[in-house]
Amino acid sequence: MTETAITSRDNPIFKRLKKLAESARARREARMTLLDSEHLLTAYLDAGGQPHTLVRAASFDAGKLAALAARCQQTKAIVLPDALFAELSPVATPSGVLAEAAWLNPPVIDATPLVIVLEDIQDPGNLGAMLRTGAAAGATLAVLSKGCHDPWSPKALRGGQGAQFVLPLQGGVDVAAWLNAFAGLSVALALAEDSDFYALDLGGSLALVAGNEGAGLTAAVCEAAKVRAHIPMTGRIESLNASAALAVAVFEAVRQRRT
Amino acid sequence: MTETAITSRDNPIFKRLKKLAESARARREARMTLLDSEHLLTAYLDAGGQPHTLVRAASFDAGKLAALAARCQQTKAIVLPDALFAELSPVATPSGVLAEAAWLNPPVIDATPLVIVLEDIQDPGNLGAMLRTGAAAGATLAVLSKGCHDPWSPKALRGGQGAQFVLPLQGGVDVAAWLNAFAGLSVALALAEDSDFYALDLGGSLALVAGNEGAGLTAAVCEAAKVRAHIPMTGRIESLNASAALAVAVFEAVRQRRT
Repeated sequence: MTETAITSRDNPIFKRLKKLAESARARREARMTLLDSEHLLTAYLDAGGQPHTLVRAASFDAGKLAALAARCQQTKAIVLPDALFAELSPVATPSGVLAEAAWLNPPVIDATPLVIVLEDIQDPGNLGAMLRTGAAAGATLAVLSKGCHDPWSPKALRGGQGAQFVLPLQGGVDVAAWLNAFAGLSVALALAEDSDFYALDLGGSLALVAGNEGAGLTAAVCEAAKVRAHIPMTGRIESLNASAALAVAVFEAVRQRRT
Repeated sequence: MTETAITSRDNPIFKRLKKLAESARARREARMTLLDSEHLLTAYLDAGGQPHTLVRAASFDAGKLAALAARCQQTKAIVLPDALFAELSPVATPSGVLAEAAWLNPPVIDATPLVIVLEDIQDPGNLGAMLRTGAAAGATLAVLSKGCHDPWSPKALRGGQGAQFVLPLQGGVDVAAWLNAFAGLSVALALAEDSDFYALDLGGSLALVAGNEGAGLTAAVCEAAKVRAHIPMTGRIESLNASAALAVAVFEAVRQRRT
């Protein structure tokens, strides 16, 4: 793979990458994103993706990248001075490897529906973690409200650790309308609400609905779910963060389904 | 409550607060910290704490703080220009309210031991979230390795949402030695290891051991636990973040104990 060195901020490729790093709209219009780190690039390739451009920071050893680069076909390779590379990286200590890559459309998962429905999750790390939890639990679909952070942002991808490549996503959804149309059991995860979560039969077609960190679920979404349930807490504080609550709930469904 | 206005960075009170904001060592030596936001201050008061100093940003409405201020006895109140206040706040958009407060020693929890053992959790938000999960689940103790982030840092307190005020903590612990001395069942949470987590009887005295985000548990700690177990994942990626894995595990113990 022959590398092209780019040293100017005015280079059109650099400008295009910078837009993808910074603008959700640019990512949406191009249906592209930037993958940060060898780990994410590996997960992308494992999921059948082929990056468009492979970007190396000058100080990153090209030899260390050879095995991954060999898996990239028809991929343009560029090398950037560290200062320019850092402008594209979502983290303070850049990994040294980025890839410009198209969004993937993971194949539909043929199993009893287990849907995670996320309303207005605004923190990219939390959103990524929730998608990762869903993917690890074998969720068949993630439904994201219009108010959610962009799941294809570099920070959300970092939190997801490859979840976005394997878990089918529907973004920009009117969640209340989606729940009204869903034929299975939908459960709004709320505090101190109607049902004890552990008393529910989670073996059938299921959607678990989790809300925003601060505000929780909106009333409209809470009411659109068939059931509102809380995870019983026995401790001295009565709250779990949204990400922890979703993990407990979705793995309780996994547990019930395997016994 | 009479407020003292401080306008200089050279003021000794400001310098003391700034050290608490920035230095784990200063916090440890004084056994003090800074509580950021009305929410944390409320949780601290609810847990029986009395802050030493109440700090308001000049632009924050003093009237809004009156009810909380009335609960603070023998507390010195100061007001800072917004620029100085921002230097003390752990977040980019400061809440406008801080309190200088001593670490609390929550009373021992008289119940079957349910201990969360955390090895080298370095991200303050993750550490706070894991303590919050433990507190919500009714954990009786949190044991933190020497390599963990300071649980009393402003960012860890933010993640904990009051957990540090109600959950007894032991910091700076040699985890392997602690596990060797623990008489109950200790379970190292690991990937694809010996036991299926759901097959364990979690009803007795229990310690759940979770490791660092990136590296997982060290071999020494893994071997010091009586059992190594994994949470079965049915999805297309084989990993949960440390915080999600702990949440699933500790609430499975809660579920087993209540049935």
